[in-house]
Amino acid sequence: MKARVFVTLKNGVLDPQGKAIGHALNGLGFDSVGEVRQGKVIDLDLHESDAQKARAALTQMCEKLLANTVIEKYEIELR
Amino acid sequence: MKARVFVTLKNGVLDPQGKAIGHALNGLGFDSVGEVRQGKVIDLDLHESDAQKARAALTQMCEKLLANTVIEKYEIELR
Repeated sequence: MKARVFVTLKNGVLDPQGKAIGHALNGLGFDSVGEVRQGKVIDLDLHESDAQKARAALTQMCEKLLANTVIEKYEIELR
Repeated sequence: MKARVFVTLKNGVLDPQGKAIGHALNGLGFDSVGEVRQGKVIDLDLHESDAQKARAALTQMCEKLLANTVIEKYEIELR
């Protein structure tokens, strides 16, 4: 089973990297670009066929290693 | 309109960061984890209501700034 985990900064946490991307895009002439936020995406191959178990394991992984839950939130997507 | 862009390494390009995450997860006892790849996710607010125009602009942004198309591929998601 393949899984995709998104780790992004919580709303309200400053994101200088996103700001820099937004400024650069505006500078290149993309005037329609407003706020930009950058995060991480992690694609995992899991040797697990039970979706419920996979989701539980991924939640553990996010809490323990993948996300800093003080400032980051995560989303899990199974495919 | 909100858009999400994924920038990930092309298949075949070494991903030491993903490997490190995979090893760390295995070390924490998550034995079901196989290959891991890490990439970037960029969330954008666009002042553009036409989906076709938005997608065209995003493709331009990816080609010009967001992705290094020699080693990275991108996916665009409108929401």
